[in-house]
Amino acid sequence: MEKTLKELAEYLGGDLLGDGDVRITGVAGLDDAEERHISFLANQKYAARVATTRAGAVLLPPGAENYGRNAIVLGNPYLGFAKLVTLFYVRPPEMKGIMPGAYLGNGVVMGADVTVYPGASVGDGARLGDRVTLFPGVAVYDGAEIGSDTVLHANVSIRERCRVGSRVIIHNGAVVGSDGFGYAPDGRGHYKIPQVGIVVIEDDVEIGANTTIDRAALGATIIRRGTKIDNLVQIAHNCLVGEHCIIVSQVGVSGSTKLGDFVTLGGQVGVAGHLEIGARAMVGAKSGVHNSIPAGQVFSGIPALPHKQWLRTAMALPKVPELRKTVMDLERRIKDLEARLAAKEEE
Amino acid sequence: MEKTLKELAEYLGGDLLGDGDVRITGVAGLDDAEERHISFLANQKYAARVATTRAGAVLLPPGAENYGRNAIVLGNPYLGFAKLVTLFYVRPPEMKGIMPGAYLGNGVVMGADVTVYPGASVGDGARLGDRVTLFPGVAVYDGAEIGSDTVLHANVSIRERCRVGSRVIIHNGAVVGSDGFGYAPDGRGHYKIPQVGIVVIEDDVEIGANTTIDRAALGATIIRRGTKIDNLVQIAHNCLVGEHCIIVSQVGVSGSTKLGDFVTLGGQVGVAGHLEIGARAMVGAKSGVHNSIPAGQVFSGIPALPHKQWLRTAMALPKVPELRKTVMDLERRIKDLEARLAAKEEE
Amino acid sequence: MEKTLKELAEYLGGDLLGDGDVRITGVAGLDDAEERHISFLANQKYAARVATTRAGAVLLPPGAENYGRNAIVLGNPYLGFAKLVTLFYVRPPEMKGIMPGAYLGNGVVMGADVTVYPGASVGDGARLGDRVTLFPGVAVYDGAEIGSDTVLHANVSIRERCRVGSRVIIHNGAVVGSDGFGYAPDGRGHYKIPQVGIVVIEDDVEIGANTTIDRAALGATIIRRGTKIDNLVQIAHNCLVGEHCIIVSQVGVSGSTKLGDFVTLGGQVGVAGHLEIGARAMVGAKSGVHNSIPAGQVFSGIPALPHKQWLRTAMALPKVPELRKTVMDLERRIKDLEARLAAKEEE
Repeated sequence: MEKTLKELAEYLGGDLLGDGDVRITGVAGLDDAEERHISFLANQKYAARVATTRAGAVLLPPGAENYGRNAIVLGNPYLGFAKLVTLFYVRPPEMKGIMPGAYLGNGVVMGADVTVYPGASVGDGARLGDRVTLFPGVAVYDGAEIGSDTVLHANVSIRERCRVGSRVIIHNGAVVGSDGFGYAPDGRGHYKIPQVGIVVIEDDVEIGANTTIDRAALGATIIRRGTKIDNLVQIAHNCLVGEHCIIVSQVGVSGSTKLGDFVTLGGQVGVAGHLEIGARAMVGAKSGVHNSIPAGQVFSGIPALPHKQWLRTAMALPKVPELRKTVMDLERRIKDLEARLAAKEEE
Repeated sequence: MEKTLKELAEYLGGDLLGDGDVRITGVAGLDDAEERHISFLANQKYAARVATTRAGAVLLPPGAENYGRNAIVLGNPYLGFAKLVTLFYVRPPEMKGIMPGAYLGNGVVMGADVTVYPGASVGDGARLGDRVTLFPGVAVYDGAEIGSDTVLHANVSIRERCRVGSRVIIHNGAVVGSDGFGYAPDGRGHYKIPQVGIVVIEDDVEIGANTTIDRAALGATIIRRGTKIDNLVQIAHNCLVGEHCIIVSQVGVSGSTKLGDFVTLGGQVGVAGHLEIGARAMVGAKSGVHNSIPAGQVFSGIPALPHKQWLRTAMALPKVPELRKTVMDLERRIKDLEARLAAKEEE
Repeated sequence: MEKTLKELAEYLGGDLLGDGDVRITGVAGLDDAEERHISFLANQKYAARVATTRAGAVLLPPGAENYGRNAIVLGNPYLGFAKLVTLFYVRPPEMKGIMPGAYLGNGVVMGADVTVYPGASVGDGARLGDRVTLFPGVAVYDGAEIGSDTVLHANVSIRERCRVGSRVIIHNGAVVGSDGFGYAPDGRGHYKIPQVGIVVIEDDVEIGANTTIDRAALGATIIRRGTKIDNLVQIAHNCLVGEHCIIVSQVGVSGSTKLGDFVTLGGQVGVAGHLEIGARAMVGAKSGVHNSIPAGQVFSGIPALPHKQWLRTAMALPKVPELRKTVMDLERRIKDLEARLAAKEEE
């Protein structure tokens, strides 16, 4: 694909600076770009690299120095970059149909242009929307539903009766609808509480590789639309994850916890069960959350505190050994003062 | 399925309160229940909801107010709930036989009524007990053994020569018998120590989605009967996990560590290698265990401490910045006292 | 297989002590060994067990007491043990060819003696070197390349265009080349930044079960030769992992971070993005790394500190509650001194 800079400026709705006839065939970072590339400045820290890049053009935020470069000026160059990567590099998935070695159960209902690769299998009574792609080794269990334009990568499992929306991407090995972890002690051991609920994944969700989302005991574990979940995340049974959340790798959310919309959980965060994390709350990487967090708050630490308090605490902790020495010294000095003052008082 | 309340009371061995002829067709939580449901009170905190639920009947603990509701009174309503969910909703897996697209190696020994789905494969000389179910994409390697009534969900791997007991459930993507992580430095890099042992999973164990249990270097990694392991857990080579343990999601147990019976490890706990965690010990979520823990103890924190000490410590840590200020202030005041007292003494 | 002790001494280049004609048929730990085994002393702590083992011979470090046992003395008995386990127990993988139920796309290029098990699939234009083994359920996507003598265990995914070197072992369920986690906020939600780079795994790397390594946004995520990665590890997009690193289970490394050669990351460590961890640096288990670490340093803790400082801090923290009491007591005593001294001064 080849586009002129003028065409790209129109595509992005940005302002052209310099030669609109420059021909662009791809996107690259400022340091790696060649003349045929358009690059982007997303962080002012790297502004000086605009002067030295070999890129044929650069996406710039308003007010940034262009160092004589051809440029497109737009409010959000990072978003512009994302859109151009999509334009230049992303092709719609190939429609390959039901390939030999794909397995369809009884009563499967399918939309148009579905692709099922060899070794993928679809259980009895499952429903697949239009243009669904199931890569090799995908297992869609009986009665599950997959919305249109959804892509399930190799070795994904969608368990019985779970529902996945449209334009969802699920990466390799992720599991939707495994049993929640629930047992009742019966005096001898642990009696399994059958997990007879489901998982509902709404539209435009993306789920990372080897992430696991457990089905509800009763009812549904729900991931609302637009939420993005990274690799190796655990979402336990009966959780409700709001719209447009960002859940980074290796997070664990315990059972029945509710996340509001636009919540961000940093990598390796753990959240206890039956909590509420309010809309637009953020939790710093590796934190342990044992209490609900109000909307809009930023928390960090183990156990999690308001972020600024955690920063102050984290700075102070390494000084505790020294602090203990100081206190012992003060104690000695006080003892000395007490003795001397008592002597003085007895005079 | 439909049962009268009287039949359910007999089934559970509980005492009937109210109308035994009420017809029940399912189980639901207090808030979601309809008239056809039986619900349950497992936590006194929700006792008032017994008054407002629309459920046709409620499982209650002895002494709980029934607010005029039809009820079954029994010692452990939560266990009763689990048993009724099983009664109403759980059906034995369908016997489907060896389906087209299933692969059996040479010399496979199989019991009665085995189900092998398309895309599952069983290696040479493997043994499957009666009523084993292998979902699509399951890979049972050469010489592995799977006990009767065991269910392996889609994309589970059981590596060469590993042994899985009866009535075991392994969820999607879990790996039993991957190589332990062992290398000997050889001056240039890391020389692989072949992991020639196996994994033994005893009867009635449940293993969560994408959990990994490594084979022993020599000998066996052992998971004893009745133990329940959640998703994304790592059990390293040569570990011994006792009977009826509860291991919550994203826990990691390092090599050669031994867990006694009925040990509970909370989510995201890490346990170092070559330790012993005594029977019925509990470790709080996200803790880091660097030393052995005696039987029956509760530990928490990083590094893990006796739980009450950890609670006190965790409460105190956010006050360290203020404590440092206090100490600096005291130091100033002591300096002042010292000067003034010295002046007084010189009078 | 049977070898005389003399043959083994020559094989390992060690010094024979005792009867060279003893016949050895296997390797076992000091406690488990029988007369037909050779055992090894890798840790002086267990030196006394050399006296009591039933092993027919023992690998000993120079200067260790042999208690009259037949022995081979060599600089690194642990490496010798690893080599003997390889000698006695490891057989080259069986060459089985392209088995029925294996799927090959168009234009696949293959070396000699490739094994593709049933249910494994190889995408269009992929390349497999000599003696590659693909276990059941492996998905090699279009255009991927797999080097000679590499083994991909069941249900491994190698995504489009990724490159895996020679003599690489990838354990079950691991994912190479899933999309990096990158989005640009677009005012309504999160716009996906297409991840159009690849992953490059160099020669002699080993990757654990269910580990995930994300493809680069642009360019490549790189794992250099000889590096060993344990189970359930997350390596984010655009990371560079140097040669011969050791990355223990459940570690997470965020985007664009660079690890030098021979770096060791303990279990459950988290490393933030865009950092540099210098060559031969070590990070203790469960640490959270928010800043770059210079070469050769040992860091621990959350947030990570130089290891010795972390140890001192971790020892001191449980004493903070008591320290607070001490400080309150001192404050009271100072107040008392101040009052008494003021009274004295007014006299």
